[in-house]
Amino acid sequence: MFETEKWKQIATDLKPKMLEEVVSPVSGLDGQSMKQGDYTILDFGNHFVGEFSFTCTFTGSHPDAPVLLRIKLCESKRELEESSEDYHGWVSKSWVQEEYLHLDEVPGEYALSRRFAFRYVKIEILAISDKFSLCINGAHVLAQSSGDIQKVQRVTGPKMKQAIDRIAIRTLHNCMQEVFEDGPKRDRRLWVGDLRLEALVNYCTFKNNDLVRRCLYMFAAGTDQNGRVPACVFDFPTLEGDDTYLFDYSLLYIVTLLDYVNETGDMETAKDLLPVAMRQYELSVEEVGKDGVVRDRDELGWCLLDWNMDLNRQAGAQFVLILGAKALCELIEKTETEDAYPLAKIRETIDRLEKAAKENLWNEKTGFFESGDARQVSVATQVWAVLSGMLSEQEARDLMSRVTKNLDTSDMTTPYIHSYYVMALLNCGMKREAEEHILSYWGGMAEDGADTFYEMFRPDDPDFSPYGSSIVNSYCHGWGCSPAYFFRRCDV
Amino acid sequence: MFETEKWKQIATDLKPKMLEEVVSPVSGLDGQSMKQGDYTILDFGNHFVGEFSFTCTFTGSHPDAPVLLRIKLCESKRELEESSEDYHGWVSKSWVQEEYLHLDEVPGEYALSRRFAFRYVKIEILAISDKFSLCINGAHVLAQSSGDIQKVQRVTGPKMKQAIDRIAIRTLHNCMQEVFEDGPKRDRRLWVGDLRLEALVNYCTFKNNDLVRRCLYMFAAGTDQNGRVPACVFDFPTLEGDDTYLFDYSLLYIVTLLDYVNETGDMETAKDLLPVAMRQYELSVEEVGKDGVVRDRDELGWCLLDWNMDLNRQAGAQFVLILGAKALCELIEKTETEDAYPLAKIRETIDRLEKAAKENLWNEKTGFFESGDARQVSVATQVWAVLSGMLSEQEARDLMSRVTKNLDTSDMTTPYIHSYYVMALLNCGMKREAEEHILSYWGGMAEDGADTFYEMFRPDDPDFSPYGSSIVNSYCHGWGCSPAYFFRRCDV
Repeated sequence: MFETEKWKQIATDLKPKMLEEVVSPVSGLDGQSMKQGDYTILDFGNHFVGEFSFTCTFTGSHPDAPVLLRIKLCESKRELEESSEDYHGWVSKSWVQEEYLHLDEVPGEYALSRRFAFRYVKIEILAISDKFSLCINGAHVLAQSSGDIQKVQRVTGPKMKQAIDRIAIRTLHNCMQEVFEDGPKRDRRLWVGDLRLEALVNYCTFKNNDLVRRCLYMFAAGTDQNGRVPACVFDFPTLEGDDTYLFDYSLLYIVTLLDYVNETGDMETAKDLLPVAMRQYELSVEEVGKDGVVRDRDELGWCLLDWNMDLNRQAGAQFVLILGAKALCELIEKTETEDAYPLAKIRETIDRLEKAAKENLWNEKTGFFESGDARQVSVATQVWAVLSGMLSEQEARDLMSRVTKNLDTSDMTTPYIHSYYVMALLNCGMKREAEEHILSYWGGMAEDGADTFYEMFRPDDPDFSPYGSSIVNSYCHGWGCSPAYFFRRCDV
Repeated sequence: MFETEKWKQIATDLKPKMLEEVVSPVSGLDGQSMKQGDYTILDFGNHFVGEFSFTCTFTGSHPDAPVLLRIKLCESKRELEESSEDYHGWVSKSWVQEEYLHLDEVPGEYALSRRFAFRYVKIEILAISDKFSLCINGAHVLAQSSGDIQKVQRVTGPKMKQAIDRIAIRTLHNCMQEVFEDGPKRDRRLWVGDLRLEALVNYCTFKNNDLVRRCLYMFAAGTDQNGRVPACVFDFPTLEGDDTYLFDYSLLYIVTLLDYVNETGDMETAKDLLPVAMRQYELSVEEVGKDGVVRDRDELGWCLLDWNMDLNRQAGAQFVLILGAKALCELIEKTETEDAYPLAKIRETIDRLEKAAKENLWNEKTGFFESGDARQVSVATQVWAVLSGMLSEQEARDLMSRVTKNLDTSDMTTPYIHSYYVMALLNCGMKREAEEHILSYWGGMAEDGADTFYEMFRPDDPDFSPYGSSIVNSYCHGWGCSPAYFFRRCDV
């Protein structure tokens, strides 16, 4: 039974208290007198989410005209060099963190009214009267998060491991706002894919389990008329699901709910939300063809798996469906609701899906699963095959060994799929490879100067963006924080 | 004795209460759905000064990204077509009333935090997500002035006269803020030249005589170490004179004080500020050469008279000095302070200045006063000769007759000098010519669509600007309001 209004109320009641911290820049406030065309770059020394404000004064004659500033707030040094005027990609330019501000009163104190995610602030004088110069003589960020970073115990070990962990924790901290946001710079909202990985890290770090619960209820309340969990939910002006759906995300809702129940033992929530989990399974099974395989689709947006335009999603979708169905069975067992849910029938379906995958997607000759009419072999497909649990440990290990030897992991563009890649390696006991991969991939971002882990990262192409330009990339993205989970829960 | 602190306190105590009015646009709110590149133009039906706010909602999918707007607030239709990007003049571009605004929450209500002067508001969508459209569904201005327009009785007579009066009253109303501003769009502060004409109109309309008194004290408190009245005063962060001085403006302070005393009979203020008046006279006399004529200077900024780059100011400065000296004598007489001030000596100086003007500036052959080494003949020079009172009524009338017949009045660029031109005509009884000039010059602005009178207006060149582009021109300027005075006090 869908109890939308009750779920909304529970989600609202769980809205977290925000913690605030005032931080000053570590450099850039050198008191220089600035004329038209001059600029200063403030460096806050780390990534923050919150409100930016500054104070200014003048030298020369009494100010006789307003000052017009362009203020650019950047997560990454890369953005400082990028120009919004050159950006014409398909993600709205409005995400670029750039403000134009008139100062009518100098000396004065000015606060930008929006929330920003940034480490660097470039303040540039677009127009000033010749009669005076401007000095920025103070600045701070009122940083906010619903996660208490003091509570988090750091890992020990080699320097790079510690660095990766610190960055991962910072990433999650800055994404923990009123929901687990995907990225505090761009989108700034709750997506299933990010939530799942953020929740896993949260359980062993911030332990703000009520925030996970809130997000699970938000998705439940945000389902559409069909009962489908949207890829993301909005919380303003009222709670509402987006009209974007991703095949894998809807199913990962079940997995996220199971993770939560396993972590907390909160059977009340499990029972409350089990109808939503069941419905995701039902809707997904409707997409299975006569051959027992999820029907392929042309459009990019039907299933995520990774932010890679060239990836064929059919096989991956099949494996996520199997994983989701198994998670559903576990939830039914745990909540002892076998009377209400057709456990046996679901298990039959799982068998059919696994059998079809072996018959139709498996290539005995190459030893890889293939996807789509073009029989594409990708790392993502193999990863989800392993994670679906349909292979024996030996089969899985053999498959992942072939992947590490023969496939090019640089096709994976996001920490999202890289996280599942590591999870797949760990699933079949390849701990050393998992560890090495964390050090090389997340370590690569650390070496790139990351304060928080990125939405996308291709070691071979640091400027990669699926959006037309990296200027709208997010450099603090929830799905990047998984190493903190691997370090704490997977003995890596 | 200069009692700066006391004067500051008096000025502060006289800060007026602001009157507010909420006004909605008369057109432009037609509820259209706007996508990237679309815009709407709101028309408020008249010129207002105050804060602009609007409400917006959306059509289509739930907003999934901020909206970036460019909001242009224009006094005149002309500005709607002008681009700030093309402006590179010497007056700061920061005066252009153009804001960039991110809307993070739609639906929402947004107020621009600055004060603007405008009739038209162009709202343009620079960036929006493809998933939704924006609708501006409400807007208003919280208009402010320290003048109560309900109190002002309108003149009767021909339609054009009534129109000119209405526009003049609106001009003064919108310039009446915490001081008599020059223009509420640009500069937004107290200048002597504007104050004098605004005060004259105020006496017969808004009758906010304490605001004039406040401004007189502000100039007194804003004098420099030499005791010189600056061309303008600032009121933020504390009261301070600008380091800009204009020879004629410093002297017109005396005239403005005399006007005030004549209007109010406030002898206390007269006595208080007489030392300031005296000091302006003394400093100006120091600029007189051995030939008895004010020394000419190259720089444009030494004396205003008019906003005309080509005007030679020497003769005009001489005549303003004579006028100021005579006003000083009148103040000394009225306040019966002959014991404290050298009345006889001042009168001697006036005689010497008048004699020198006749000997050195007058051309008997042409019947015009000439200015500077190049012996320039300008309307402005003749106007100030008449206003100085050094000519007999017959001489003055003959001179102004020659001016109207032989000189090109289109050299005068501002309502400021045109106001004194009309005053000169009235001074020598040429009422018909004065009336005709008001109808043609101010009527020309009315026909140009003015809601308030402009800072500059050349009927032969409506786009004229001394600033490099009309985009920074002010279309509501205090010195344009004089017709309302002529209509009420000069029987025009």
